[in-house]
Amino acid sequence: MQSYEHILLAVDYSQESSSLIEKAQVMVERFQAKLSVIHVIDAIPMPDTSYGTVIDVNQEVDDPLLAAEQMKFKELCQQLQINPAEQWLVWGIPATEIINVAKHVQADVVLIGYRHHHGLAALFGNNAAEVMRHVQCDVWTVTLR
Amino acid sequence: MQSYEHILLAVDYSQESSSLIEKAQVMVERFQAKLSVIHVIDAIPMPDTSYGTVIDVNQEVDDPLLAAEQMKFKELCQQLQINPAEQWLVWGIPATEIINVAKHVQADVVLIGYRHHHGLAALFGNNAAEVMRHVQCDVWTVTLR
Repeated sequence: MQSYEHILLAVDYSQESSSLIEKAQVMVERFQAKLSVIHVIDAIPMPDTSYGTVIDVNQEVDDPLLAAEQMKFKELCQQLQINPAEQWLVWGIPATEIINVAKHVQADVVLIGYRHHHGLAALFGNNAAEVMRHVQCDVWTVTLR
Repeated sequence: MQSYEHILLAVDYSQESSSLIEKAQVMVERFQAKLSVIHVIDAIPMPDTSYGTVIDVNQEVDDPLLAAEQMKFKELCQQLQINPAEQWLVWGIPATEIINVAKHVQADVVLIGYRHHHGLAALFGNNAAEVMRHVQCDVWTVTLR
């Protein structure tokens, strides 16, 4: 019977996303699956193209916003006990980068939050729909409240 | 830790949906969850409004198409060992009925197939997106190939 061996968790750092992170932990435990984590930085201009689009969480950066992103991502990955090879801090368009990384790591499923709000706050919801439309693996959406 | 106790599986009877059904079985086993099943009939005209929109799988019907739908649904529910109270053969607009039943049975998650094709074959994919946009619980999509 086909199961899930590799889950890619897509996170922002909103307050509501704690339920998403909790559910990721449930999934990992129930499926005994590997967990990769991706966070896409799209709110700050890319400060220096020498970093590339995948950002090394341990590389020292001058930009204080980027440094803050690194710090938050590191904390989350520590909390979830994610191996360095499964940590994806990426700069770009969220849906595009999530789809690319899902393919690259051969994830069976993308776990992503979904917001029912409208306007700007709905962006994360749109990301989920966009990922679903184009990614080749399964997509699990967790409603964020 | 928050888990899943009640899964609503939305099925059509396409050949590809066997992978969806298999995954539903994996989910039920891993989460020790209750499974409800819904199939929405939208391709045939409602033959007699006295049936209502929820169709009793055991009620005798004159319409041969509806009788065939009942038969297929019964077989699936037998295969999945679904209690009669958790069997939902419904006539209407798929996304709308799935959302209604998910709310009615207080499902934690809707499990639904997603097709990446275009045109008519993409209808099921659109249903998944539509359910995601409006349902209050989580949605898991399984890519149908």
